[in-house]
Amino acid sequence: MKENNIQDLKLGILGGGQLGRMFIQSAMDYNIDVHILDPDPDAPCKNVATSFTVGKLTDYDTVMKFGKDCDILTIEIENVNTEALRALEKEGVRVFPQPDIIELIKDKRTQKSFYRDHDIPTADFTLVDSKTDIAKLGKFPSVNKLGKEGYDGRGVQVLRTASDIDKAFDVPGLIEDLVDFEKELAVIVARNERGECRTFPVVEMVFHPEANLVEYLFAPADVSAEIAKKADEIARNVIDRLGMVGLLAVEMFLTRDGDILVNEVAPRPHNSGHQTIEGNITSQYEQHLRSIFNLPLGDTSSRAKAAMVNLLGEEGHTGPAFYEGLEKVSAISGVHVHLYGKKLTKPFRKMGHVTIEENDMELLIEKVQFVKEHLKVISNV
Amino acid sequence: MKENNIQDLKLGILGGGQLGRMFIQSAMDYNIDVHILDPDPDAPCKNVATSFTVGKLTDYDTVMKFGKDCDILTIEIENVNTEALRALEKEGVRVFPQPDIIELIKDKRTQKSFYRDHDIPTADFTLVDSKTDIAKLGKFPSVNKLGKEGYDGRGVQVLRTASDIDKAFDVPGLIEDLVDFEKELAVIVARNERGECRTFPVVEMVFHPEANLVEYLFAPADVSAEIAKKADEIARNVIDRLGMVGLLAVEMFLTRDGDILVNEVAPRPHNSGHQTIEGNITSQYEQHLRSIFNLPLGDTSSRAKAAMVNLLGEEGHTGPAFYEGLEKVSAISGVHVHLYGKKLTKPFRKMGHVTIEENDMELLIEKVQFVKEHLKVISNV
Repeated sequence: MKENNIQDLKLGILGGGQLGRMFIQSAMDYNIDVHILDPDPDAPCKNVATSFTVGKLTDYDTVMKFGKDCDILTIEIENVNTEALRALEKEGVRVFPQPDIIELIKDKRTQKSFYRDHDIPTADFTLVDSKTDIAKLGKFPSVNKLGKEGYDGRGVQVLRTASDIDKAFDVPGLIEDLVDFEKELAVIVARNERGECRTFPVVEMVFHPEANLVEYLFAPADVSAEIAKKADEIARNVIDRLGMVGLLAVEMFLTRDGDILVNEVAPRPHNSGHQTIEGNITSQYEQHLRSIFNLPLGDTSSRAKAAMVNLLGEEGHTGPAFYEGLEKVSAISGVHVHLYGKKLTKPFRKMGHVTIEENDMELLIEKVQFVKEHLKVISNV
Repeated sequence: MKENNIQDLKLGILGGGQLGRMFIQSAMDYNIDVHILDPDPDAPCKNVATSFTVGKLTDYDTVMKFGKDCDILTIEIENVNTEALRALEKEGVRVFPQPDIIELIKDKRTQKSFYRDHDIPTADFTLVDSKTDIAKLGKFPSVNKLGKEGYDGRGVQVLRTASDIDKAFDVPGLIEDLVDFEKELAVIVARNERGECRTFPVVEMVFHPEANLVEYLFAPADVSAEIAKKADEIARNVIDRLGMVGLLAVEMFLTRDGDILVNEVAPRPHNSGHQTIEGNITSQYEQHLRSIFNLPLGDTSSRAKAAMVNLLGEEGHTGPAFYEGLEKVSAISGVHVHLYGKKLTKPFRKMGHVTIEENDMELLIEKVQFVKEHLKVISNV
């Protein structure tokens, strides 16, 4: 039997941001042309995609038109028109992750319900439709999450007392127990069409207190072998129960009692896997490619201890981006700077990331501090 | 003092083949737009460069027109119009490697004479202008090298007896002692404008007997610390004597007496450094970028033992390329396939390479054999 020449398959991606850009860097190694649809004419993939189409990802006709010539279609963001993806799937386009799964995940209400229905450990929650519901429930402290369209920390509100109800969302969402966690962990897991499944080593994330974005992370996480195993099994369990093909990032809380609760998932390459480019034998981007092209999945072993620092736009700076301290940090051994090709910076915008590979944990922490102190995205003007 | 925002500098490359393509993968991490000039409208950089201009690299006006808007200009191949590069340099374009050095290197006669004049060890040689000169010299066995325009093994003839003179080149070149070597080694060295200099660990190359191309290599080379040190010092010495800014691959013979002789150099990323993408903290492509942008040079330490296998077009196959065995080899742990985006294959054409990272030397050799046996570039038609 003759294999597919995978380079003859036309791949489309809905979304052309930094994730698409790093995916393209990896796809080039396989001769895979990447066609991008993105609403932003200056999106990071603009100059590096084989073709770049400007259009709304949530518009049925736009997605249909873009996807109909593709052999394989994948996503970089969940907020896409899944109705169009289902129609394309019926026409024979291989859509991964599958449209029903994107649909399920992109609404936190159905996502959380899925965990409950499949005995996947997660914080207790109640579905709510409005502020009135939230007030009636009267549960404090708690976390109010928007059902749809929350991302990068937007769409999450901590309600400490009744007076916080003003901040709550007045649309369908959920109220979740506020978890008193020790650490936030993540496991990235991939699954291909033949059901082969591989996880990356669990990582440990530290969030920015204001922006609610990953500020930096350590890989592998500093947890016991038992905790690492538990996190790994949960991630495998989630992708298996979903029956998903593609890459899934599973974010988890490690509670002070040693329990692990699934917080949320993203069915695509994820911020918690950027360091795999240097830190692991196979990167999350190549693994995504292998999964959706039904290639054997790659070895995910760590090459070295690594940290990843997100490079966020400085507060008070909006305009053309200037990377202060780039020279200083690039002089440090094991520091890898990844900029995302965004011309304009604004406070907390994800402008790039830095991976540091360093096996000496003390030195690794020092280097993280050095990068955080010296590398700043400011505006020239 | 304010640093340069390196992403605001316009970079042009003369040549848009696989070396340019892998350079672009690396340049994307620094937000550096790459503008390419190449005579082949289907060159590997076509779809991934910020701009792609079709034109002859040896034509004065073409190079002038392409280069005049650039802030920094570099090369992917030595056979370029150096007169135009010198004129551009005078107009303020930063050309690295410097045009005089490209000029010196691209003619093996001046290159070899440079080694002799600077006490850099190299095989003895005599300059010749024609077959008549070669016959007069009557030195057998010997190696006849073309002065200009030899590359990838073309332009080199071994003359074993007088009857081989028919095969000799009837144009300016040189006759060199045939070196009875134990191994062929290479060291890649980089130097930036402030004179900082860094070498990669020495590698050991095995050449294809027919095609005279690197068939595979091991990194680091299996040589004593003393030999490694000697090779390293020679490479540093060559780039220092040249006063070159950029990346220089120094190919050497290790003789059976433990001497090291410089064979030839290439002032750019090189086949003997492909494995640095995975095998070393900094890749040769990023190091090239760092050197020409005058950034601090990166750490060149090996992450692991690695081998690199060139993926050459199979004999007897010409036409649209099909990668037989891609799935099989991609299932092997530590195997990284790099395809070069060439649509058509022909015998011995460099279609890609495979890097294998594997610390167990026996396993590494097994995996090299597996890749060589199973991954073939054939034609579909």
